Amino acid sequence: MSYKLFIPGPIAVSEKTYKAMATPIVGHRSKDFQNLVASVEPRLKELLYTKDPVYLSTSSSWGVMEGSVRNLTNKAVLNCGNGAFSDKWFDVSKRCGKEAGFLSFEWGKPVDPEALEKELATNKYDVVTIVHNETSTGTMSDLGEISKVLKKFPDVVSVVDTVSSFTAVPIKKDELGIDVVVTGCQKALAIPPGLAFLSPSKKALERAATVEGRGYYFDFLEFEKNAEKNMTPSTPVISLIYALDSKLDDIFAEGFDKRFARHVENNNIVREWAYGYGFELLPEEKFGSKSLNCFKNTRNVDLPAVIADLKKRFNMVFDGGYGKLKGNTFRISNMGDETPETMRELLGNLDQILPAYLK
Amino acid sequence: MSYKLFIPGPIAVSEKTYKAMATPIVGHRSKDFQNLVASVEPRLKELLYTKDPVYLSTSSSWGVMEGSVRNLTNKAVLNCGNGAFSDKWFDVSKRCGKEAGFLSFEWGKPVDPEALEKELATNKYDVVTIVHNETSTGTMSDLGEISKVLKKFPDVVSVVDTVSSFTAVPIKKDELGIDVVVTGCQKALAIPPGLAFLSPSKKALERAATVEGRGYYFDFLEFEKNAEKNMTPSTPVISLIYALDSKLDDIFAEGFDKRFARHVENNNIVREWAYGYGFELLPEEKFGSKSLNCFKNTRNVDLPAVIADLKKRFNMVFDGGYGKLKGNTFRISNMGDETPETMRELLGNLDQILPAYLK
Repeated sequence: MSYKLFIPGPIAVSEKTYKAMATPIVGHRSKDFQNLVASVEPRLKELLYTKDPVYLSTSSSWGVMEGSVRNLTNKAVLNCGNGAFSDKWFDVSKRCGKEAGFLSFEWGKPVDPEALEKELATNKYDVVTIVHNETSTGTMSDLGEISKVLKKFPDVVSVVDTVSSFTAVPIKKDELGIDVVVTGCQKALAIPPGLAFLSPSKKALERAATVEGRGYYFDFLEFEKNAEKNMTPSTPVISLIYALDSKLDDIFAEGFDKRFARHVENNNIVREWAYGYGFELLPEEKFGSKSLNCFKNTRNVDLPAVIADLKKRFNMVFDGGYGKLKGNTFRISNMGDETPETMRELLGNLDQILPAYLK
Repeated sequence: MSYKLFIPGPIAVSEKTYKAMATPIVGHRSKDFQNLVASVEPRLKELLYTKDPVYLSTSSSWGVMEGSVRNLTNKAVLNCGNGAFSDKWFDVSKRCGKEAGFLSFEWGKPVDPEALEKELATNKYDVVTIVHNETSTGTMSDLGEISKVLKKFPDVVSVVDTVSSFTAVPIKKDELGIDVVVTGCQKALAIPPGLAFLSPSKKALERAATVEGRGYYFDFLEFEKNAEKNMTPSTPVISLIYALDSKLDDIFAEGFDKRFARHVENNNIVREWAYGYGFELLPEEKFGSKSLNCFKNTRNVDLPAVIADLKKRFNMVFDGGYGKLKGNTFRISNMGDETPETMRELLGNLDQILPAYLK
């Protein structure tokens, strides 16, 4: 019953990665583990174009997303919401007992830099959260424009979730001046889920030092103290760090520019194919994600039936819409190890199924 | 450079388990994932002899240990400390901004039920934490006697960490009346680290509903809401759940009683061997852990040298003491898949090394 995932995460994992995960476990307080961290961490920094450290968190991305709110908020956090995950961050902030404001955009719209500037100018906030690539709607906000706004508010610590854009498109953390990047492993890195990443600026660490109730498991300063020794605060998910080490070899062998170009090419192939059937992208085209596409179900296709058929006949699956968009949109991932050839294989299979479902 | 771990966690992982981890990833909102949870969860309940649910947490055990403090404490938490991990729980409680009291015992001593009763009788606490098996000192407290005390304080929610005792000795949660059991996967379950477990009573869930600031990632009620659908709140560490599924097959095939007896037999073999060299157990013998042994370095052996030698010549490692006991104690794990034969193999190798180091 094995089948290939074209859902926007978790995604298909290579045999090479699975093999890396079977590397024998070492003690997490051993020199061997320190060497493993020393192998991955500098390369994660390069991938974020940053001098800041990158911590390894044994959790899914929500762990470090919640952790950022707990570690950074003294006054209030502004959560920018334009989809299921960014909206939920507002809910999570309140559940942490933090003062929180919500800057809401229609699902499928990007974060609007002007609206952001206006809200930050109220001076109510000391933290802001933004999801770069809203996986639920396939919408990628313009970090370049957003960062111009953020730079006008040096007392606000910015947290950007790049869960489904990291390594699919360039994210130049230092140039953008983002304080904290949080991301995960099961999207473009094509590693099984369970490992998250957190890269804080010096300013973010200084802020954390002033915040009470940070706890231990996601404490930025505890991560920092351990990272200095190439260690982690708690027992880490070692097998996935082996997988990461192997995947970084691939990424550096391919080269960043080629990798980013491959994602764009994959992405365009899917768009053109869908346009051919008369489907429209949910977001405005220039804000369409490069790691997945989210299309409106403008042809009123019975999505669960198409997906079931594809799975049964071709052992592949895509996604039939998330949350309140379920049934009204569908999403096809093109991230990770996919190539124009593998994308065309999926689309060719769909060509054999889809026409029968068109109204 | 592969070698076998006899440190008290993480421990050696079988080829069968690594193979299970390479099962192709499925979407975590799919029926296939729900089926996987439905396969493991009832068996975890059986292993805890409980009718309460058992949640899967994508974290190491510290995550759910901290989560328990955040979810359950309105008034104050009493942390019983008798070693590195239980002592640290007190520190973590304070870092969560909770009122916390510390009932401290000498390292190597068990939690004393009388002292516990006296402290709880002050009526200052609504939560108490106990580490069943202090991995740092190889000391196993008497849950039977402790539970008699806990039953006298029905308003106090009890949290017991069984990280290094779960599936090595029976832990009859319902009979003991423990409210919350927290545990992990990288000790006796012999799974690579990164998956933790949390089993709360109805009373614990009711308490959680009254506590502010629980957050999201370790929120008991969020776990419960998702567990009802055989799901998890956040993207789970699917590969380790596959490993768990495979390991549970082994445990149920062997039978609980045989498994527990095997751990006792392994444990006794190591004790007798060490006594033969004149080493003494750190704790009083009846409180010695059944999953590992912690010996005083009464022969003043150069532990780092012995461990390095064993690693180099025989590709095996044990542990040279934790925290403030480093160098003064050593620990040998006998948990997981080990048998009398594999324990004797380790000890036979040590017999070829140790005599040269005795003073």
